[in-house]
Amino acid sequence: MKIIELKQTILDDNDQDAQVLRKELQEKKTFLVNLMSSPGSGKTSTLLALKPYLEGRLQWGVMEADIDSDVDTQTLLKAEIPSIQLHTGGMCHLDADMTRQGLKAFDQDNLDLIVLENIGNLVCPAEFDTGAHLNMTILSVPEGDDKPIKYPLMYEKSDVLVINKIDVLEVFDFQKETVEKYARFRNPDIQIFYISALTGEGVKELADFLVKKVGEQL
Amino acid sequence: MKIIELKQTILDDNDQDAQVLRKELQEKKTFLVNLMSSPGSGKTSTLLALKPYLEGRLQWGVMEADIDSDVDTQTLLKAEIPSIQLHTGGMCHLDADMTRQGLKAFDQDNLDLIVLENIGNLVCPAEFDTGAHLNMTILSVPEGDDKPIKYPLMYEKSDVLVINKIDVLEVFDFQKETVEKYARFRNPDIQIFYISALTGEGVKELADFLVKKVGEQL
Repeated sequence: MKIIELKQTILDDNDQDAQVLRKELQEKKTFLVNLMSSPGSGKTSTLLALKPYLEGRLQWGVMEADIDSDVDTQTLLKAEIPSIQLHTGGMCHLDADMTRQGLKAFDQDNLDLIVLENIGNLVCPAEFDTGAHLNMTILSVPEGDDKPIKYPLMYEKSDVLVINKIDVLEVFDFQKETVEKYARFRNPDIQIFYISALTGEGVKELADFLVKKVGEQL
Repeated sequence: MKIIELKQTILDDNDQDAQVLRKELQEKKTFLVNLMSSPGSGKTSTLLALKPYLEGRLQWGVMEADIDSDVDTQTLLKAEIPSIQLHTGGMCHLDADMTRQGLKAFDQDNLDLIVLENIGNLVCPAEFDTGAHLNMTILSVPEGDDKPIKYPLMYEKSDVLVINKIDVLEVFDFQKETVEKYARFRNPDIQIFYISALTGEGVKELADFLVKKVGEQL
């Protein structure tokens, strides 16, 4: 397994650097998704669930960012999803230059889609543009339907909200209307998908959406 | 409702400041608990569940820290728990001086126990000593039993780990042995409580523990 220790960057203008990275990736025909969520919302299991629906439609891989450990990368590699492990050395976010360090190490120019699995955190990751073409946030049902109210920036910056663990909708007090109202209050254009990475419900729709987004860039 | 906009502090030595604050509080016979977790693990609902078991045994109150919003403080005040709202202005942690700003505004010298409900986040809050006498982290069952491996510092810094939502233990793949092994790997002395803030299971034991800790300081 490739483990990359990222260096902290001291760039004055991350926003500009992110624009540059986004364009570079576009020229290489690589679509970058920045996947964010709380710890335990199911980022890795969503990627595993997507795999059969992406197979044969595009080439993809995952850059797995963690403070420490490599359990998720191990899981992805076992499922034969090309992956590398990025370590942030305690930092709770990735910026564009750190993302670029990861991409260089990944060295997979043939990929149509790269998913950056960001640090599990609803605060810091939202503060830095990673250079991704799409920001996707997962909220799992047990976390509650009020999260978009409590973590404004994350939801303002998210293009896509994936609501995971809908198989336990009956077990928790989670109202679809409430979460949709709050999420659209933060970002009126946010696209919302309901899935269960466990049962597979809704995962095909999410995969179709991703394939379409990747296709639009080619 | 009192809403305090905290100012960012630029102290060189937060650790030393935290020691000073801890001593100041001890002299006032106030026990400060720093309550941390991911978003949606149930910090506020655990406090609500504790209320009947603390009633008549000690005077307590809550400082509710959030990036934005005041929904949790509203909930606490409705339950007649003395509370104030602290806003961090986007910051994902509180340090000792920010905690002190909150305590000054709270202005409740008669309290035996103050709980600082920290920002929902497993990264940044662990990096700053708030001056609390006890660091307590909640992990909820749906988040998974591997969190102590992924968020090392949070678990190293935690004196107490509260595992919440045990009413859904059967619904999720969460092994007590696994989480205990991982948590003790990070901190061999960590004390672990299993509760359901929803059903009340285990909450009395946690309340008894807190009353005992507060009593030890008097």
